[in-house]
Amino acid sequence: MEVCTIEPKSGTALQLNKGQSLKVICPHGEQVADMTAYNATDFKECLSNGKTFDYEETLRLTVGNMLFSNLSNPMLDIIEDTCGIHDFLLAPCCENTMKHFYNIVQDHPSCLDNLYIALKKYEVEKWAIPTAFNIFMNVELDNDRSIKVRPPKAKAGDYIIFKAKMDLIIGLTACSAKDSNGNSFKAIEYQILD
Amino acid sequence: MEVCTIEPKSGTALQLNKGQSLKVICPHGEQVADMTAYNATDFKECLSNGKTFDYEETLRLTVGNMLFSNLSNPMLDIIEDTCGIHDFLLAPCCENTMKHFYNIVQDHPSCLDNLYIALKKYEVEKWAIPTAFNIFMNVELDNDRSIKVRPPKAKAGDYIIFKAKMDLIIGLTACSAKDSNGNSFKAIEYQILD
Repeated sequence: MEVCTIEPKSGTALQLNKGQSLKVICPHGEQVADMTAYNATDFKECLSNGKTFDYEETLRLTVGNMLFSNLSNPMLDIIEDTCGIHDFLLAPCCENTMKHFYNIVQDHPSCLDNLYIALKKYEVEKWAIPTAFNIFMNVELDNDRSIKVRPPKAKAGDYIIFKAKMDLIIGLTACSAKDSNGNSFKAIEYQILD
Repeated sequence: MEVCTIEPKSGTALQLNKGQSLKVICPHGEQVADMTAYNATDFKECLSNGKTFDYEETLRLTVGNMLFSNLSNPMLDIIEDTCGIHDFLLAPCCENTMKHFYNIVQDHPSCLDNLYIALKKYEVEKWAIPTAFNIFMNVELDNDRSIKVRPPKAKAGDYIIFKAKMDLIIGLTACSAKDSNGNSFKAIEYQILD
């Protein structure tokens, strides 16, 4: 499949069948993509950070790690990763975080809204969008375990490839929160590989 | 209200109204209690580790921190805490983690099953039980962010008190995974304070 572009501050949904791979590319560097995933045949099964941390026993998820569902099944296997710095702690930015962190009260895109809009055709409700796997997101933990969001380490052209372990519906964004992206909004690219 | 006991490897559900507080006590030391929470009037709203990490900007949640819902609302305010070491990373132990970590294939209690059984009267389905707030759970993070479950730091009599910020249904367990509890199963106590 050709390389597709997710425009800045937007999102998309796509089907990824078992055995296919999804390549997510940071074309301009310093950009984050929030990714969520559902079992294509049962949307009650979705990505779970807690279950992934249980089985992988690390917060630093990269090649050799899998992302698990709330039902303890492997959903995505990370098979290539030129960046190595991603996050699975923080929930997608939303109307409330825009207000809380940026004092933005007027309409503004957010990853939660963009995932919701993209996944609407599959009847996913907003409350059912879990903590996403935040590709290229650089979250620093201090010794006291306080959290700081830093500019992504991803350089232009960095990418990560996930292999699907079941038939999936994926939601994917080009993140809408400035702090996550080194203070500018940029596009994300993706490609489905058979 | 009197002090209630959750027997080893079991769980309970309780209603906690806005303004009431829940005291969770470690009566014998080194025991974990998994806690989840739902908006009593809309079970689509539940505890979210990702949203809590977003707003509190720390993994080390104690007095002064609140636990947030998937809809960005404060659910529980931590108002007292004699231990200070809890976890919000790992999902409740379940049939699959019992097999994965302990090679237990026969029936064995787990926090996920105990939460499910306790919350069944509210028609909560098992897939809808999120990553719990693991009271007294001692999760070590190495410099490479690998995760190690250590015996709880809680001593006999240590407790934590949460004040409800909305009307809640709470699920609470005395954990069924040996590694979480310093290798023995013990009871948990709780008390609702008006």
